[in-house]
Amino acid sequence: MSRCDEVQEVVLQEPCDMHVHVREGAMCELVTPMVRDGGVSVAYVMPNLQPPIVTVDRVVQYRARLQELAPQTTFLMSLYLSPELTPEVIHEAARVRAVHGVKCYPAGVTTNSDQGVDPNDFSQFYPVFEAMQEEGLVLNLHGEKPSSKGDCDGEGDGINVLNAEEKFLPALEKLHADFPKLRIVLEHCTTAKAIELVRKLNQQVPSDSDPVVAATITAHHLLLTVDDWAGDPVNFCKPVAKLSHDRRALVSAATSGERCFFFGSDSAPHPVENKQRYRGVSAGIFTQRYALAYVAEVFEAQGRLDTLQKFVSDNARRFYRVAGEAKNTVTLYRRDHVVPELVTNNSQTVSVVPFMPGETLHWDIRWQK
Amino acid sequence: MSRCDEVQEVVLQEPCDMHVHVREGAMCELVTPMVRDGGVSVAYVMPNLQPPIVTVDRVVQYRARLQELAPQTTFLMSLYLSPELTPEVIHEAARVRAVHGVKCYPAGVTTNSDQGVDPNDFSQFYPVFEAMQEEGLVLNLHGEKPSSKGDCDGEGDGINVLNAEEKFLPALEKLHADFPKLRIVLEHCTTAKAIELVRKLNQQVPSDSDPVVAATITAHHLLLTVDDWAGDPVNFCKPVAKLSHDRRALVSAATSGERCFFFGSDSAPHPVENKQRYRGVSAGIFTQRYALAYVAEVFEAQGRLDTLQKFVSDNARRFYRVAGEAKNTVTLYRRDHVVPELVTNNSQTVSVVPFMPGETLHWDIRWQK
Repeated sequence: MSRCDEVQEVVLQEPCDMHVHVREGAMCELVTPMVRDGGVSVAYVMPNLQPPIVTVDRVVQYRARLQELAPQTTFLMSLYLSPELTPEVIHEAARVRAVHGVKCYPAGVTTNSDQGVDPNDFSQFYPVFEAMQEEGLVLNLHGEKPSSKGDCDGEGDGINVLNAEEKFLPALEKLHADFPKLRIVLEHCTTAKAIELVRKLNQQVPSDSDPVVAATITAHHLLLTVDDWAGDPVNFCKPVAKLSHDRRALVSAATSGERCFFFGSDSAPHPVENKQRYRGVSAGIFTQRYALAYVAEVFEAQGRLDTLQKFVSDNARRFYRVAGEAKNTVTLYRRDHVVPELVTNNSQTVSVVPFMPGETLHWDIRWQK
Repeated sequence: MSRCDEVQEVVLQEPCDMHVHVREGAMCELVTPMVRDGGVSVAYVMPNLQPPIVTVDRVVQYRARLQELAPQTTFLMSLYLSPELTPEVIHEAARVRAVHGVKCYPAGVTTNSDQGVDPNDFSQFYPVFEAMQEEGLVLNLHGEKPSSKGDCDGEGDGINVLNAEEKFLPALEKLHADFPKLRIVLEHCTTAKAIELVRKLNQQVPSDSDPVVAATITAHHLLLTVDDWAGDPVNFCKPVAKLSHDRRALVSAATSGERCFFFGSDSAPHPVENKQRYRGVSAGIFTQRYALAYVAEVFEAQGRLDTLQKFVSDNARRFYRVAGEAKNTVTLYRRDHVVPELVTNNSQTVSVVPFMPGETLHWDIRWQK
């Protein structure tokens, strides 16, 4: 029974998920079609394969494979920031329109980040950033300092999973100061402090200009706090979900309609056996299959379904300059359904636990023909 | 090869572990003899069985069973604070010397705490506390406020796993003010703030008197911080390990020799299948099998093996008034050995992951004949 003043449907144009992990092999075959199942038509794909994607040839091949698996989805691609990634690769990638950005992983903070960089000193990459600024490519930052090994020597707490993002923020400020025209995205931000900084950096821009610094927000960080991953590895990801006031700041930013905040699910599938372990649980939450439904739950609870189009599409398309004509329309409509415990491929060789297994979602999607 | 100035052996009299979970059934048969294997001769046993222990008959039966399983170990017993526990039960328990204390679990914070109490209002138990004060029984507090359901309404963060102990501390202060002669132990304390409060409450006591408020400290909280349980369910327990400055405060208190701090392992065995789950991981770390070896690692790193006897025995025996003659002597000696991945019973029906599986410990124990 629906109340007569309740919104029953929300029509969305060209929904974008600006941070997607679709992996390779059997996992890729399973999850890539689910980008569309989740209500998303444009996906920005992360390059943290093994080995990471650092050449134009490889990114072109990877895109072709994804396009084959999901012909109706538009895949935007990225390169992995590493010493192999020279300014020449950037210029070549731009010339053949292979990528929209370059992803920077601090070494050792998350899945396949072993070959990442030292966020205490980006100077070796300044020629690459120069080339990116010139070519109009976006810099995507995993904004965490790596945890201190053991205790710090001093009186403080060093870097831990709770303050790793906050401790990274000065590096973001410095990068923006050094490359004021380089578009930068602080990916999957999790703290009130990060939201505050992204807003502050945008206040320095003329009000009719587009943002130069933006942040993506995941579906799960709109819903979780530290208590949700303590004892529940299904909810463990990096950066970890923080405190209630952080979650509230993320919800407020996402539903505000502000141009500098848009959706990036950081959907990160891991085989179930890597999530049910007593040690070394893989960091990552798989949200792709129900991406828009999770987000709709949050926007509805805030009474802000009116700003959903901006968060899941307009702000991203404008920032990434992929606006053009919207070709795909999806309808979110009210329907209760239970998230399965596992999402499995036909040959039963790969299973992934989706976010909120066994819980009821209140929205489903259908594509317009 | 040992350095000539290195301590090679530490002889300890009557080591005590003042917070032990030994369960029932097959698990009890497996872990109870391991109290002695870990170097402990006196163990204070927790009453959170299913159903909880609230009668004198049951505690006497339980002690008899434990004594049968481990005849050389002395078991001190406790009752579970609940509405069924009347002042009459307290007087009877004291008369027959069945227990040394009463354990208070806030409802819903840890294993088998469903029948716990509301720590926002202890007033219904004041008659019980009166009886305990009169009889000289100890009140053992699991010092956490239960987490807020969802977000709090206000601007703050409500109660979460990180601040749950700190938020409990005013309740401890009030109990001590209302029952100044009731001996209280803040169990398995995890924060610098808790250490500070216990010290402060003891400064109010004449310097030649014994402490009225004490705290137990576990082996694992001397070794872990939040980063160690994020993604590693083997290290997940309640209260959760906190930040580096908290850990340093615990190490400093434990190694100080101060009478108000002593060892309580909170060793909490769970079947391995309850630790390797993607949801609902059991809270608890199994340290019993190598209890003194873990603690010795910490004391040696601080150069304080000289205070180990106080922490693992003297302070506890004095506080609990079980000093008497020390009948058991254990020698900690230098020997490298690797902690197994699993501890399993003979019939292979129960397996438990010990703390620090696969890691090397540098101390082992042998009992004097």
